[in-house]
Amino acid sequence: MKLTIQSQILRDAINKVLSVVDKKNSRPILTNCLIKSQGQKLELIATDLEVSAKILLNAQIEQEGSFCINSKNIADILRELPNDDVIMSVDNNNLLNLTCKNINYSLLVTSTEEFPQLSFQNSSSEFRLKTKQIAQIINKTSHAISTDETRLYLNGIYLQMTDSKLRAVAIDGHRLALLDTHEFIGENKFLVDGVIVPRKGISELKKIADTYPEDDVSISLDDSFMFVNARNEYYLSIRLIAREYPKYQTVIPSKTTNRFHIDRNAILNAVKRIKILSNEKTNGVKLNIQKNEIVISTNHPALGQATETLPITYDGKATEIGFNAKYLIESLSVLNETDVTFEFNNELSPVVIKADDLPEFLGIIMPLKL
Amino acid sequence: MKLTIQSQILRDAINKVLSVVDKKNSRPILTNCLIKSQGQKLELIATDLEVSAKILLNAQIEQEGSFCINSKNIADILRELPNDDVIMSVDNNNLLNLTCKNINYSLLVTSTEEFPQLSFQNSSSEFRLKTKQIAQIINKTSHAISTDETRLYLNGIYLQMTDSKLRAVAIDGHRLALLDTHEFIGENKFLVDGVIVPRKGISELKKIADTYPEDDVSISLDDSFMFVNARNEYYLSIRLIAREYPKYQTVIPSKTTNRFHIDRNAILNAVKRIKILSNEKTNGVKLNIQKNEIVISTNHPALGQATETLPITYDGKATEIGFNAKYLIESLSVLNETDVTFEFNNELSPVVIKADDLPEFLGIIMPLKL
Repeated sequence: MKLTIQSQILRDAINKVLSVVDKKNSRPILTNCLIKSQGQKLELIATDLEVSAKILLNAQIEQEGSFCINSKNIADILRELPNDDVIMSVDNNNLLNLTCKNINYSLLVTSTEEFPQLSFQNSSSEFRLKTKQIAQIINKTSHAISTDETRLYLNGIYLQMTDSKLRAVAIDGHRLALLDTHEFIGENKFLVDGVIVPRKGISELKKIADTYPEDDVSISLDDSFMFVNARNEYYLSIRLIAREYPKYQTVIPSKTTNRFHIDRNAILNAVKRIKILSNEKTNGVKLNIQKNEIVISTNHPALGQATETLPITYDGKATEIGFNAKYLIESLSVLNETDVTFEFNNELSPVVIKADDLPEFLGIIMPLKL
Repeated sequence: MKLTIQSQILRDAINKVLSVVDKKNSRPILTNCLIKSQGQKLELIATDLEVSAKILLNAQIEQEGSFCINSKNIADILRELPNDDVIMSVDNNNLLNLTCKNINYSLLVTSTEEFPQLSFQNSSSEFRLKTKQIAQIINKTSHAISTDETRLYLNGIYLQMTDSKLRAVAIDGHRLALLDTHEFIGENKFLVDGVIVPRKGISELKKIADTYPEDDVSISLDDSFMFVNARNEYYLSIRLIAREYPKYQTVIPSKTTNRFHIDRNAILNAVKRIKILSNEKTNGVKLNIQKNEIVISTNHPALGQATETLPITYDGKATEIGFNAKYLIESLSVLNETDVTFEFNNELSPVVIKADDLPEFLGIIMPLKL
């Protein structure tokens, strides 16, 4: 194998796949990435068997071949190389000779036989999604993904197609975030049943959306995997969470009797300020909702108490609702700087948060009993 | 006590003293800062008994008084407050009432009786130093301060007056950094003997230098403390390390027979690149110094080897010297982007590094036996 490639092109690609590489070191081969030259393309693959990434790069290939190399090591080397041509050749002793200007590395490589065989394509049941839509789904819902490893079925974003909408849902038992993407055309039986995309897959999808902000990507599904193809040069294969997603609809109130309207920044900043004096474990703050004003307060036995009063539009029944300030802050932070509406029935019922400028979004927070 | 102050003024000051506050929580009172109003000034003091800081702030004082409050808590509150007037008053129940617009905190405070009595001034044996000079001393030498807690006497920068120069030295057993500040006028018997300023004091001094980049500050010394006064508004008291500093002069070669001249960026970047393949514990790299070229290399049993060749000006004896790459990188990083000179006698003698544009500086690295 022999090829020439620009160091910055290879560096960018290695940095993209680095986060896929297995951190648990369950199998030594998975700390490597696979580099393969074919035609005039260099193929770079990394996997932890749950999420796999493949990137195709332009290179001048003199002689085809392939090898595996420690991902962190080659990334460290590329980080320090100047922007210039890199010549790579592998000899028969499993040594990669890497030269850039007056710099020479001779690196031990592993044969590609041990590296898992991966598939990045399922040509049937394909649909397309704009990277802007993918970014929007992730930005608005991923904060509500559960981190509780004993509830694996909540450790991802649930995607389901209903009425030609693509619905994304994340819940963690304390709150829910839901975003509908309209005008979605993609006949897909797996999406009708719904799929759960795990957190790590979500963060790799986000990377694709950031890399191609103006594109759309091809997505296909099978029983176990989601396959993503961006521009035929950046591919993902994400193992879906093979569990049933809970009936999230049951926590969405079918109707609410009370609602108030408030400036998103005003309530977000107030809750951040009041949280400082809340109990470190529960982060409990009280929202005392009165006619046209809300009093946010908390108290801490060792530190003191805090209150802040804000104007609202409200003429319902005076109600005091407790919240975990952290959940309130995270739910409000993903919304744009506009007005938001809080809807609720009473102090113990789920509280619905809607944003004026984003009717496709729905947030729910369960109140705290204070 | 009652006063009004702008939130941003108090926030900046609290953030400055926060790093002084005792992290070890050895005594609960030391997690507090002391706030005292006197005349038209607010005084803010924090200490861990080793380093103490005092800042004076302009405020509208209606009624004088003082209290102690948890430093982290008040800093957290101020971080989230809008830029506006803050009204603070302490009632008889040890409650601080803090109001900013529609925001109200009622905070438990402690009486000032338990807070240690601190001195920030020794009017005798005073001298002045430009903050630019202080910054230069710290930037060029602090990387060589030892972190070995069993060698307390190396855990700081040694300052000594010799021949109307102020000499700053840091050593850690593997390397030395020395900077002379010329035209220094300050008759000071403690400086003639030399004082050791501990690492934490150094970082607080750096903060003063950053706060007043164009000023000079007053420094005075006694047996145990260094006192710093910037503009009569920002004060430090630093407990000196009460040990004898080792005879650092013995490691500076009186004469060297070999020297080479090289571009600082070229060798710094090369060593960073080669280090990647060095042994993780020793970070050993070899400098093979030949007539007019230097070959930097290393090898790692599991990863491979690396070499880089650079042009130098050298006509001495061919010599191969081993280095800990980390020390070489740190020593070169503090120098400006200009040419540097390496001076040495043989492969085991101390290597002197000098910078073309900074004749007051001297760096020494002990070679590694490879």
